[in-house]
Amino acid sequence: MDNWKENLRDIEPYVPGEQSKEKNIVKINANENPYPPSPEAIKAIREFKSENLRFYPDANATAFKRALAEFYGVLPENIFLGNGSDDVLALCFQAFFNGKKPIAFPDITYSFYPVWCRLFGIPFINYPLKDDFRINVDDYKAENGGVVIPNPNAPTSLGEGKDFINNLMEYNRDCVVIIDEAYVDFGGYSCVELTKKYENLIVTGTFSKSRSLAGLRIGYAIGSRALISTLEAVKNSYNSYTVDSISMAAGTAAIKDRDYFNSTTAKVIATRERVIKELRALDFLPLESQTNFIFTAHKSANMKDYFEWLKSQKVFIRYFDLPRISNYVRVTVGTDAEMDIFLEKTREYLNKRN
Amino acid sequence: MDNWKENLRDIEPYVPGEQSKEKNIVKINANENPYPPSPEAIKAIREFKSENLRFYPDANATAFKRALAEFYGVLPENIFLGNGSDDVLALCFQAFFNGKKPIAFPDITYSFYPVWCRLFGIPFINYPLKDDFRINVDDYKAENGGVVIPNPNAPTSLGEGKDFINNLMEYNRDCVVIIDEAYVDFGGYSCVELTKKYENLIVTGTFSKSRSLAGLRIGYAIGSRALISTLEAVKNSYNSYTVDSISMAAGTAAIKDRDYFNSTTAKVIATRERVIKELRALDFLPLESQTNFIFTAHKSANMKDYFEWLKSQKVFIRYFDLPRISNYVRVTVGTDAEMDIFLEKTREYLNKRN
Repeated sequence: MDNWKENLRDIEPYVPGEQSKEKNIVKINANENPYPPSPEAIKAIREFKSENLRFYPDANATAFKRALAEFYGVLPENIFLGNGSDDVLALCFQAFFNGKKPIAFPDITYSFYPVWCRLFGIPFINYPLKDDFRINVDDYKAENGGVVIPNPNAPTSLGEGKDFINNLMEYNRDCVVIIDEAYVDFGGYSCVELTKKYENLIVTGTFSKSRSLAGLRIGYAIGSRALISTLEAVKNSYNSYTVDSISMAAGTAAIKDRDYFNSTTAKVIATRERVIKELRALDFLPLESQTNFIFTAHKSANMKDYFEWLKSQKVFIRYFDLPRISNYVRVTVGTDAEMDIFLEKTREYLNKRN
Repeated sequence: MDNWKENLRDIEPYVPGEQSKEKNIVKINANENPYPPSPEAIKAIREFKSENLRFYPDANATAFKRALAEFYGVLPENIFLGNGSDDVLALCFQAFFNGKKPIAFPDITYSFYPVWCRLFGIPFINYPLKDDFRINVDDYKAENGGVVIPNPNAPTSLGEGKDFINNLMEYNRDCVVIIDEAYVDFGGYSCVELTKKYENLIVTGTFSKSRSLAGLRIGYAIGSRALISTLEAVKNSYNSYTVDSISMAAGTAAIKDRDYFNSTTAKVIATRERVIKELRALDFLPLESQTNFIFTAHKSANMKDYFEWLKSQKVFIRYFDLPRISNYVRVTVGTDAEMDIFLEKTREYLNKRN
C-alpha cells in the first residue's frame, strides 16, 4: 500500500537561472534585450480582439509562418513553430535522435542539451572546445547519431562562418544536424540558406533575444519539408496548440518590422563593441562576441569574487561554476546607461582590489 | 551517405480535429465556449505593459498560482501550470508513469491518452465503458501502473461523483491517479478536495472551456506537494518557461472574476438543458451531460449522414468514426441563437428524411 512513488519516472531536476524581483537593479544576467519589442508588435497586442480568445489558435499558424517565410526567403512549409526555442529544440531532440548512436555537441555550450538527452534517453559525446574556445570541426567528422552546434555558441559568444557549416555538413550526411541560432542576429552567420542545400540541416531561432519577446515564448525551426513534417508529427502527438493567438499576432508584427529590428540589433552591437573596448582597457580578456553578451576573463582578478561583489551592488551578471570557465563571467549587453553603471562598478571593484 | 532518415524516431502522427476558416458558420465542433473571456481578463490584456515582454516570464508564476490556490482552497505549492492542459497531461504521463506496468483508462475517452502512451513508451489497458457509457469502477481494481479518468468523460459527457472517486482511490494506492477535469465546471463533481486526502491523486484543469481562453493555452494540475514538485522537475528538464506573461496576467484576472464565471457557466448549462429537451422531442437520445457539449444518437436517423448534411449547411458538429460510437454525434453548446439555428437545421434534416 502507498507504494505509488515506485511507479514514478526517475528524473534529475534541472535548476534554471536565477531571476530577481528586486527593483533598481541592473539586470544583465539573462541575455534579455534592453529595448522593448517593436512598436508594431505592441500595437498588434493592443489591437488584438480578445473576445476571440475563446477559440483555439490557428493550428497551422498560416499568417505567422508566411511572415517568417518571407523574412527568411523560404516557404511556409519549411517553418516549424513552438513555445520558445527550448520547446522547439526539445522536440527536435525527440524527433531526430532515436538514441541508437550518440549525438555530438561541444563540452561548453547551452546547458539544456545534456538535460534533454537524459530525459529522452539519447546518449551523447561532448567534444571539448579548443583552448581559444573555438569549435574544432574535425571532432565532428565521426559516425554521429546527430550533431547540435549553437552558432554563435553560448556562453562563449563566438560564431563560426559558412565554411565551417559546409565542412560540418559534408561529413555529416547520415544524421540530422541542428544549428541553434538563438544569438545569430547580433552579427553572426545564419546558415538558413544552407537548409536548401542540405535536407538534414535544421536551424532553430527565437523571438526572446533580437525580437525582445522573451515574455511571449516564441521559437521556430527552419529546414527541409521532410524535417519540418517530422517535427509537426511529433508536436501533434504531444500538444497541438503550443503557440497562442496573441503571441502569433505579436510575432507576425515583429518579424515584419525590419527597420526596428535592424536599428535595435545595431544599437546592441555598437554598445557591445564599446564595452568590449573599455573592458580591454581595464585588463579584461573578452572574447570576440557575435552575440548580445560578452564572455570574459581578467588578467588578474577572480571572476567569481567580481561576480559576487557586483551582485552586492545590484548589478546582476552571470557566473558559471563549471570546468574550464570558472574564471569567466557572462555579461548581457544592456542599454548604454546600464553598461555605464556596470563599467563604473567594475572600475570601483578593480580599484578596491589594488 | 544520406541515410539520415534512419536515425529519426519512429512516430505515428496524430491528426488534430478539423478547424474551418469559413465565416457565417455555426461552429459547435470544438467544445469552445460561446461567450467571450471575462471582461477583467480582456482588461488585463489591454493594460498589460508590453514593453516588459523583453523579460522572461516569472518562472514561479507567483501571482497566478496564488489566485488559483485561493479559488481552489489549496496552497500555491499544490498548483502546477502548463501550456494548455494537453501540455500538463503529457508531462503527467512522462512524470508519473514509468512504463513498467500498464496504465488504465476507458476505451472511449480523450484521444490523446493512447498517443502519449505510444510517444513515451507506456503500455496501457483500455477498459470498455458499460453499455450505458458509464465507467465500471471495478475494472480499475487491478495492479495498475497508473489510472487516467476524465471526469466528466469526453465525448460521452457523463460525470461520476465523490463515491466513485473515493472507491477508485481506495483501490489504487500504489500508483498515481489522474482525474482530467477539463469539463467539470459545467455541472460535474470536482475532486480537488480529495487531493488533500490522497497524496497520489492529481487533478488537471484548463482555461480553454469554462474560462473562454482556448486561444491563450493555459492548463493546470492540482495535487500533493510530492506530485507537484515531481512535475516541476520534469518541466524544468524540458522547457522552463511554458506559460507566457500575457497568459498569466489574463488567467489571473479570469480566475478572480467569479461572478462572470458563474453567470457564463450557468448560461451554458441552461442552454444545454433546453437543447437536450428539444432533441428528445425530436427522437434523439442525448446522454445526461455534465459538460458544455451534448453526446447523442437518434432513434432512427444515421448520425454520420446527419453530421455531413449539417456540415453542408455550415453547421459544424463533431462525428467520431470509432467503434461503439459511430452512430453518435457530439454537439458543443453554443449561444441560444446558434443552438436555434442548429435545431432548425436538425428539424429540416429530419423532415427531409421522411
